[in-house]
Amino acid sequence: MTDFSSAIPIDRICYNEQGLVPAIVQDYLDGTVLMMAWMSSESLQKTLETGETWFWSRSRQELWHKGETSGHLQKVKAVRYDCDSDALLITVEQLGDIACHTGERSCFHQVEGTKTPPPADTLSGLYEVICDRRDRPQVESYTCKLIAGGDNKILKKIGEEAAEVVMACKDDDPSDIASEVADLFYHTLVALAYHNADVKEVYKKLQERKR
Amino acid sequence: MTDFSSAIPIDRICYNEQGLVPAIVQDYLDGTVLMMAWMSSESLQKTLETGETWFWSRSRQELWHKGETSGHLQKVKAVRYDCDSDALLITVEQLGDIACHTGERSCFHQVEGTKTPPPADTLSGLYEVICDRRDRPQVESYTCKLIAGGDNKILKKIGEEAAEVVMACKDDDPSDIASEVADLFYHTLVALAYHNADVKEVYKKLQERKR
Repeated sequence: MTDFSSAIPIDRICYNEQGLVPAIVQDYLDGTVLMMAWMSSESLQKTLETGETWFWSRSRQELWHKGETSGHLQKVKAVRYDCDSDALLITVEQLGDIACHTGERSCFHQVEGTKTPPPADTLSGLYEVICDRRDRPQVESYTCKLIAGGDNKILKKIGEEAAEVVMACKDDDPSDIASEVADLFYHTLVALAYHNADVKEVYKKLQERKR
Repeated sequence: MTDFSSAIPIDRICYNEQGLVPAIVQDYLDGTVLMMAWMSSESLQKTLETGETWFWSRSRQELWHKGETSGHLQKVKAVRYDCDSDALLITVEQLGDIACHTGERSCFHQVEGTKTPPPADTLSGLYEVICDRRDRPQVESYTCKLIAGGDNKILKKIGEEAAEVVMACKDDDPSDIASEVADLFYHTLVALAYHNADVKEVYKKLQERKR
């Protein structure tokens, strides 16, 4: 277990008149904001000591070990505080990938009163769109045409786009390189979606290599 | 300009005893949490109407149009609220890529008292590590060896990894596919770093294609 005890100077954090500080909880793989809750100095200390999140429940007026009853614990990856020390940002691995008591992944699942996936990084967002096209085909969609063509159509494009990245790099044109890399990433995500291989599995492999 | 007026039921948001609600501000490209500030119902309304963020300054006790003096305005991409309607999540394009008054990109730049880039999605985080290796070479680093080999070494790997993605897909092994896609993404990021083409430029191209 990583030791977070020196990451945050508990005594220097600015708590409000109730002795609490807001803590934003973020997924370590795709940057999704999962929830915001309140920490007392005691719950912050327990979070740093145990490597799992503890909050202060304002409604029940008690310490609250996130996931203790549901099993949806949050394993802390990093903790930080902001420039005026009155907000915390906790990066976590969310067990079960459900942070909200409603069963949704994130508490921020509402827009205009309807449920919609919370914002994450660009690739994850695009992957969601591609999976949606896969599951609910639309006549005019390029993604749907690719998927209908199966591996041979999708994988030919990966070879083609990889070659175009190579050519753009040889020409050393940053804008062209970004454009070709975008094409390569997009077609690779289509291959992932076609094979039901989640982009988060790719991120996990990449996290392992960052060490 | 996108109209956000129907995204949030301003009257149904739960404001605290000071009439304020915490608003988390997140970068629309890589998911980085840039800052947290407070909104009154009036500042929320102005945010929804103008498509730029407005907050309530608790120290100055006045409405505050983010970036009005610095030029670092935040262009709103999406707004949402959480399951108990007492926190907001605002996704933005941060002009100047600086949200913090200290000149840092994010207010959450502190860990153990030292400055360090805030968490973002996995690819952006890996890209930062690769750029660091490029700028501060280390003897035993595979990334440094690749970069020292220049385009011919880096681009050969892209061809090789693309072929391995194709083979893994043909074998239809999701775990193997994720692993090979991770390799392809990693080597593509090395090519980007070598050519000083930012991964955020790639994300911008992909965002354009999501529409």
